[in-house]
Amino acid sequence: MNLPPFYVDEIIRTAIKEDINYIDVATDLLIDEKQHTKGVMLAKAEGVLCGIDVALRVFELLGPGLFEFKKFKNDGDRVKCGEIIAEIKGPTTLMLKGERTALNMVQHMSGIATETAHCVSLIEGTKATVADTRKTLPGIRSLQKYAVMRGGGKNHRFNLSDCAMLKDNHIDAAGGIIPAVKALREKIGHTVKIEVETRNLYEVSQAIEAKADIIMLDNMDVATMTEAVNMINGRALTEASGGITYETIGDIAKTGVDIISIGALTHSVKAFDISLKIKVGGEN
Amino acid sequence: MNLPPFYVDEIIRTAIKEDINYIDVATDLLIDEKQHTKGVMLAKAEGVLCGIDVALRVFELLGPGLFEFKKFKNDGDRVKCGEIIAEIKGPTTLMLKGERTALNMVQHMSGIATETAHCVSLIEGTKATVADTRKTLPGIRSLQKYAVMRGGGKNHRFNLSDCAMLKDNHIDAAGGIIPAVKALREKIGHTVKIEVETRNLYEVSQAIEAKADIIMLDNMDVATMTEAVNMINGRALTEASGGITYETIGDIAKTGVDIISIGALTHSVKAFDISLKIKVGGEN
Amino acid sequence: MNLPPFYVDEIIRTAIKEDINYIDVATDLLIDEKQHTKGVMLAKAEGVLCGIDVALRVFELLGPGLFEFKKFKNDGDRVKCGEIIAEIKGPTTLMLKGERTALNMVQHMSGIATETAHCVSLIEGTKATVADTRKTLPGIRSLQKYAVMRGGGKNHRFNLSDCAMLKDNHIDAAGGIIPAVKALREKIGHTVKIEVETRNLYEVSQAIEAKADIIMLDNMDVATMTEAVNMINGRALTEASGGITYETIGDIAKTGVDIISIGALTHSVKAFDISLKIKVGGEN
Amino acid sequence: MNLPPFYVDEIIRTAIKEDINYIDVATDLLIDEKQHTKGVMLAKAEGVLCGIDVALRVFELLGPGLFEFKKFKNDGDRVKCGEIIAEIKGPTTLMLKGERTALNMVQHMSGIATETAHCVSLIEGTKATVADTRKTLPGIRSLQKYAVMRGGGKNHRFNLSDCAMLKDNHIDAAGGIIPAVKALREKIGHTVKIEVETRNLYEVSQAIEAKADIIMLDNMDVATMTEAVNMINGRALTEASGGITYETIGDIAKTGVDIISIGALTHSVKAFDISLKIKVGGEN
Amino acid sequence: MNLPPFYVDEIIRTAIKEDINYIDVATDLLIDEKQHTKGVMLAKAEGVLCGIDVALRVFELLGPGLFEFKKFKNDGDRVKCGEIIAEIKGPTTLMLKGERTALNMVQHMSGIATETAHCVSLIEGTKATVADTRKTLPGIRSLQKYAVMRGGGKNHRFNLSDCAMLKDNHIDAAGGIIPAVKALREKIGHTVKIEVETRNLYEVSQAIEAKADIIMLDNMDVATMTEAVNMINGRALTEASGGITYETIGDIAKTGVDIISIGALTHSVKAFDISLKIKVGGEN
Amino acid sequence: MNLPPFYVDEIIRTAIKEDINYIDVATDLLIDEKQHTKGVMLAKAEGVLCGIDVALRVFELLGPGLFEFKKFKNDGDRVKCGEIIAEIKGPTTLMLKGERTALNMVQHMSGIATETAHCVSLIEGTKATVADTRKTLPGIRSLQKYAVMRGGGKNHRFNLSDCAMLKDNHIDAAGGIIPAVKALREKIGHTVKIEVETRNLYEVSQAIEAKADIIMLDNMDVATMTEAVNMINGRALTEASGGITYETIGDIAKTGVDIISIGALTHSVKAFDISLKIKVGGEN
Repeated sequence: MNLPPFYVDEIIRTAIKEDINYIDVATDLLIDEKQHTKGVMLAKAEGVLCGIDVALRVFELLGPGLFEFKKFKNDGDRVKCGEIIAEIKGPTTLMLKGERTALNMVQHMSGIATETAHCVSLIEGTKATVADTRKTLPGIRSLQKYAVMRGGGKNHRFNLSDCAMLKDNHIDAAGGIIPAVKALREKIGHTVKIEVETRNLYEVSQAIEAKADIIMLDNMDVATMTEAVNMINGRALTEASGGITYETIGDIAKTGVDIISIGALTHSVKAFDISLKIKVGGEN
Repeated sequence: MNLPPFYVDEIIRTAIKEDINYIDVATDLLIDEKQHTKGVMLAKAEGVLCGIDVALRVFELLGPGLFEFKKFKNDGDRVKCGEIIAEIKGPTTLMLKGERTALNMVQHMSGIATETAHCVSLIEGTKATVADTRKTLPGIRSLQKYAVMRGGGKNHRFNLSDCAMLKDNHIDAAGGIIPAVKALREKIGHTVKIEVETRNLYEVSQAIEAKADIIMLDNMDVATMTEAVNMINGRALTEASGGITYETIGDIAKTGVDIISIGALTHSVKAFDISLKIKVGGEN
Repeated sequence: MNLPPFYVDEIIRTAIKEDINYIDVATDLLIDEKQHTKGVMLAKAEGVLCGIDVALRVFELLGPGLFEFKKFKNDGDRVKCGEIIAEIKGPTTLMLKGERTALNMVQHMSGIATETAHCVSLIEGTKATVADTRKTLPGIRSLQKYAVMRGGGKNHRFNLSDCAMLKDNHIDAAGGIIPAVKALREKIGHTVKIEVETRNLYEVSQAIEAKADIIMLDNMDVATMTEAVNMINGRALTEASGGITYETIGDIAKTGVDIISIGALTHSVKAFDISLKIKVGGEN
Repeated sequence: MNLPPFYVDEIIRTAIKEDINYIDVATDLLIDEKQHTKGVMLAKAEGVLCGIDVALRVFELLGPGLFEFKKFKNDGDRVKCGEIIAEIKGPTTLMLKGERTALNMVQHMSGIATETAHCVSLIEGTKATVADTRKTLPGIRSLQKYAVMRGGGKNHRFNLSDCAMLKDNHIDAAGGIIPAVKALREKIGHTVKIEVETRNLYEVSQAIEAKADIIMLDNMDVATMTEAVNMINGRALTEASGGITYETIGDIAKTGVDIISIGALTHSVKAFDISLKIKVGGEN
Repeated sequence: MNLPPFYVDEIIRTAIKEDINYIDVATDLLIDEKQHTKGVMLAKAEGVLCGIDVALRVFELLGPGLFEFKKFKNDGDRVKCGEIIAEIKGPTTLMLKGERTALNMVQHMSGIATETAHCVSLIEGTKATVADTRKTLPGIRSLQKYAVMRGGGKNHRFNLSDCAMLKDNHIDAAGGIIPAVKALREKIGHTVKIEVETRNLYEVSQAIEAKADIIMLDNMDVATMTEAVNMINGRALTEASGGITYETIGDIAKTGVDIISIGALTHSVKAFDISLKIKVGGEN
Repeated sequence: MNLPPFYVDEIIRTAIKEDINYIDVATDLLIDEKQHTKGVMLAKAEGVLCGIDVALRVFELLGPGLFEFKKFKNDGDRVKCGEIIAEIKGPTTLMLKGERTALNMVQHMSGIATETAHCVSLIEGTKATVADTRKTLPGIRSLQKYAVMRGGGKNHRFNLSDCAMLKDNHIDAAGGIIPAVKALREKIGHTVKIEVETRNLYEVSQAIEAKADIIMLDNMDVATMTEAVNMINGRALTEASGGITYETIGDIAKTGVDIISIGALTHSVKAFDISLKIKVGGEN
């Protein structure tokens, strides 16, 4: 699986420009640009790696053809504290200039993958899957959704164009769930699914009758959710959403829902610690 | 204080494009674009607001001149759960299209401001200030650093061009701290400060002799740091960095350091919960 | 329904830059920029209008706040030869500079809408709908797909990210239709439909068994297609594709297929003739 | 002849982004990115090829250095149905991702070249040449004008900056053809030609007297046009424009005009059918 | 005459971003953003003003709708030392942030206009005109060429696409001036002029025979140039180029050449001194 | 020292697009794109070279991998009239297309470096250094500041974000120099220096008391400046600014100031003459 290169390169270029406005006043003025070195990227914690290709791409964009990479771990691999992720050989000046940008990205993405994997582990043995939401950070949705996938989660819709999610305002505008789904089916492309947000069993029953493709069970307690899943009985995909915690996720999964979507996977990310040890000289 | 508009508008446009690739298949096909509504932005927790102007700008960019805003809280204000932050009147379709993008930004920025304010509160009564780092997310460094400031923290250097930070590789390349600072002073612009990273008291003594403007005390224990601050005795600004936690920050501040820099402020952000209640009809 | 403004504005800006590299050497050097005039946009043929807002936006971008518009027809309206579509009042210089760009866009989009409407009319009375494809021109897919919708057609998937279409290579890689759909379902987001391309009844039967959401009947003759539709019997949406002509479209629709997708709607467009009569002086 | 690379690459990048918003949900999730394949680009009709370098560039931009190309036909070459245009070897995933974008471009450009060549053939033996206009599609004027040239036509002005074309409004503003041309000559750069649009013999006589470089004979019947050409008698280039059809173009060329400009070459393009057969395994 | 707005706005945005990377650390932290002030733009020397609209646009882009402008002088007007060019009222913070960028642009453009006007004055009474070249600074060719025009000069070709200039390499490739012009005429669009560079009378005679539209007399002494102009005798436009100085320009003009092109107008510009006096309080 | 590649490449791409809007109508239509040639870049005057890497990059961007370069001189090297700077081998067509853009850049940058070196030579033997200002041309500040450095000067602040310069309006807003510096210190990041503009000895004394990092002595005569430097006595860096000429710079330097900043280094640049001799055939 590949992220679209134009996305990634644009994000990297923007990040480098943020970090080097003119020159690197320490590195450019002190270190000979012909000096080469080796950097070792190390995991400083246990978790799921993600973003290693993105991180290495930072150096490639800074010095096209000037770096050599050895990758020991790939996106989606579980890493332990102290494990070597990759080795990078190239000009010291460029390695120092790219270090922060590269680490910022791989740490963020690995943080997402690690947290996703943890959530997935909490519902093992059920049929439920963990999914992300549109609660992402501006400009890096593709990186974040990719990291969720690498952590073992699934991607919810990418944006407002590729799946219809009917909320209050849509439903009110059409005069109810059933007329809303009907009106939309007549206009919407045949490749697009319709999801309906429901908050109680009456709305669930309406969504079933409306033949929604997916029914979101929004902020329901476990008992109600169980009943809803039973009512739906496979006639639509079911998605639990709202207020999912480590404590509740297991019980929610056991209700039989298909998908559990969690905004925090992308809106509240804890960076996963990875370092780059740069050592001049040495074996090379 | 204003963030540069071009920065912010570009970030917003990118975010909206991520979220609306073609049309909003639910909103555009179901809701009359002439329908107007009112949205109320509410705090769902207690903390420091940041990013409200950025969030409102999302709607303005989606429908120039079509929205009316009432702001009840400003960036840097403390908000309580349930408090109204702002009211937005405008076309329902555009409000629904901008909602997620606007909230994603204000929640992230308020999360940073709130956490910064918490750290600042933990060192109250000392002369130390809390500062950010370059451990930011790609493309939104300006938003993140601004939020740190609004939370009561200070900004460390914005990038590699506006302050020289001498680390191992720079020092080794020049043959030591003293020759490194000397060589750099001769070349660097007179407006740029030189900071030296030190890990022990010997390096601190070298940095003092080198007349570094700022001396970073990297991952030192409190006892060593106290000794370092005493040795420096005002001849340079002192910055504590590495491994700062809620537990240790108070003792670190009491060593007399000037700045405590914390990467987690921007690399591990917990979104601050804010919602937008959209209600068709009502008073307007 | 609104096209995303950033898309449209970017396309317009690019188009204007293509058309005005430096100055308009005739207009800027001969006509007083204070002179105002009125332009009348007229249909020169009968068909379905599309792109009028885009065309007027050209002038607005050239002279923000300097133009007044009266729209007599909207996107999707049927127009007759000689009918007035819109009146534009503003600076003569800017009207002359925007004329070509505006007409190029509205003529292209109206050409698509008109042709789509014609195809739709040929299958009236059946349950089939006309859909577009990804055979669009570079950079203007959103304009083209929007025009298809305004002509009464429906949009097929917008891109490779929002619907999975399994072709030969995908099926071969997984070892057949059934394992391919199965493997994909396990990985793909729950909001994304899976369409399978089939060329014969055996493949159709496989696609049914695989529980494909949509089954494409590719280049089948009417008899085979009828049999396929009967076999599928509502268990999946059916899409006829390949070699659709004015002569065959009626019979294809009568097979009971749900969708008939036609690449020529966007890859072989005949511009719809619209003119802008610019008249200095006159009533204003 | 080379199209400017930045133009072309930007157009391609935009087109790919339209077609791959996040990942290719079928290809990325089903096909091993290490799998390689061979694609054969075939003409499916008879005509003039154009855009082959642009099409191959799509793959190069998707996977720099990962593809090998063999070109059997070049831009401007006549191709027959079934002829192999090029062979492409590279990663299957990238070939599938680039296929549609590449074909959309080469089919459009070959459609233009083929139609231009047809018009040129209709006036063989006369001194007239076929030219394009500014009636192009937004963002791809350079591709379209290049295709006209490859089809044997010539390019009219590229934009409003590189040739002055005096129409009604310009002429009225200056008080007539003669004062308009005079006023413009005094101000315009010496490298820019002045063309005057005329609709009758009186205007032609004025344009001659004004020493216009080029006289456009707009929508004249063949008899009037013949008289105009005779009046002008080489003192200016002559350009026939408006209402050119397959039926009339031959007679128009025989009037002795120098240029026949045809908007339909670029505003009403029929795609030329070209396919890419992708076959896993096989000889490589 | 209007510069294309997209050009100008992009240049301004880039310039502002260069000048404000994050915040204005003095202004944003010290001055209340509600404070308003008046700025007076003053000429500090005598010359020709150019770029006033560009300069005012800087403020408009920084604070859309927040500024009021009074313009007392327009592009192309002669100004004296001490004369007020414009008054600007608006927020102090934004005025301080835009000041440098605005002045940098208007000073550069006025420098060009003033120097051009001086060259024009030196050849008054002859039929020659002063023209610019392609020796411009990266990214601001449109601003520079516009300033030449406002100074009373004329624009040479804008780029390599809108006029053909045959130099050594082109001529050698075709086997001489006559075959080169002939070959080019057959391929080039009918709106494009052909200019031939000549260094001696033999080449001039060849260019005449080739029916070049423009003949450049490159680095010729006055006697040779006079002879060349006489030989040409109106059969082509004549352009003197190379080594033009204040001392020689008068004699060159008297040879009867049509155009004298001077690279220094745009490659060696002396800024024209203009200041912005910002005064808080006062009459408003 | 390396300029950030993204900056430079963007500037070059913009410049090339300015210079080649569509095709090069002379080169593309006359010269075989397979023809190769050698170009020799020669100094036509004596001075300091700067921008050679930028100039060569123009060709690399036009034809990636198609050119071979031999550099005989580097940025910062002194060159004499007639000396060979570099040799370039590659396609004739691309060499002709890149020539003007490449020369425009290297001539401008070398002009800056040469003038800076001249100013530096005039103050040899003093402790003063020459610095640039923010009086740069839009979009090329990085190129210009880099050239100042290569000429032996130093860079003043890069923008409004990386050093605080207190002028009238800032000081008035805070009620004087001392409260202004105090207020700012409390808010500003610890890495940012504060410079205060002073016009007389009283203000100097205030700036000393305020503990400004840098004190600008603005438009002072030599006697006053000497007194100011003595008063300051090393407690702040001193910067002379305003009205520096070849005549006065020596005496100013002798006052003991640390920095002499000169706007003309970048706002009034005289291009340094460099040519590219392109010779088809020859040794390669």
